[in-house]
Amino acid sequence: MERVRVSPNVFLPMPVVLVGTRLGSRANFMPVGWCCRANLAPPMLCCGIHRAHATPTGIRETGTFSVNVPSAAQMEATDYCGLVSGAGVDKSEVFEVAWGELGSAPMIADCPVAMECRVVEIVSLPSHDLVIGEIVAAYADPAVLRDGRVEMDAVDPLVLTMPDNTYRSLGDERGRAWSAGQGLKAERGG
Amino acid sequence: MERVRVSPNVFLPMPVVLVGTRLGSRANFMPVGWCCRANLAPPMLCCGIHRAHATPTGIRETGTFSVNVPSAAQMEATDYCGLVSGAGVDKSEVFEVAWGELGSAPMIADCPVAMECRVVEIVSLPSHDLVIGEIVAAYADPAVLRDGRVEMDAVDPLVLTMPDNTYRSLGDERGRAWSAGQGLKAERGG
Repeated sequence: MERVRVSPNVFLPMPVVLVGTRLGSRANFMPVGWCCRANLAPPMLCCGIHRAHATPTGIRETGTFSVNVPSAAQMEATDYCGLVSGAGVDKSEVFEVAWGELGSAPMIADCPVAMECRVVEIVSLPSHDLVIGEIVAAYADPAVLRDGRVEMDAVDPLVLTMPDNTYRSLGDERGRAWSAGQGLKAERGG
Repeated sequence: MERVRVSPNVFLPMPVVLVGTRLGSRANFMPVGWCCRANLAPPMLCCGIHRAHATPTGIRETGTFSVNVPSAAQMEATDYCGLVSGAGVDKSEVFEVAWGELGSAPMIADCPVAMECRVVEIVSLPSHDLVIGEIVAAYADPAVLRDGRVEMDAVDPLVLTMPDNTYRSLGDERGRAWSAGQGLKAERGG
């Protein structure tokens, strides 16, 4: 099949989260798309954040941060937090703030899911800090739970694609993981 | 707003990619959902991969790996690669294999997007290796390019949610990033 060389600056589909930090004495929130789970047990995630932002300073100072999952209904406020820097603008009143057990990682009370994280390691890459954090506690709106677990369908999160800079909903179901390939497994063995 | 404590093992929406490695002399592919960009320039990404899999061995031995973005049409083959281990099963003929400039990171010629990566650092977490790689080259089907850049809409990638273990399409557009919050910025200043 014909393939052509393209810029290596390829962007995968991204979950949209808001990273919460304490800057000085106030809560600050920044939308982040470079975020994924990093370890299963204990649960950890990582976020790639440009060092030019105020957020890495708050993370380094407190050793903690929060990861909040906004619903699509919170798109405008989420996007606003990416348009202005916490270094110059007080974003502490954009959302209702909640402080959890860590005491230094402000969460967003009105997001359907919020996680408190303790820094495990910060890998300094050329432009970005890759912040690895253990999820020490998580909170959710009971309306997004099924059997006690967070169901993303109910959260109605945003997925960001670039370079078209488009916020999207979760799309239609195409199949089931650890299931869709069972026919091939039966054919090929394994 | 009422929030309840939930398991910290929360899963964000994930892009579905296939990580390619050379195991001994053969190509091997493993689906990975814990993957995001980590650095802008040079472009880097990271993948969280359980050390029980064969893939981390191939990555450590060669210092390279590939990240391939399957389209939803490749869901069955993608899922199959997650059902059997490269330690015991030869998955080198599931896809058409292409070797790029690194020579040790097998790519999938029939995926709309494929990236060759050189390992920058491997962070050993308790259960997972967080593999950070520089994207040294990328290749795409010309049909998924707009102005020379990869458009995810055209790729038709899979997004995985857990614990419902559902592969999904990209959903409908909800708004534009760096734009949807401009009204709030005008109101609030910044």
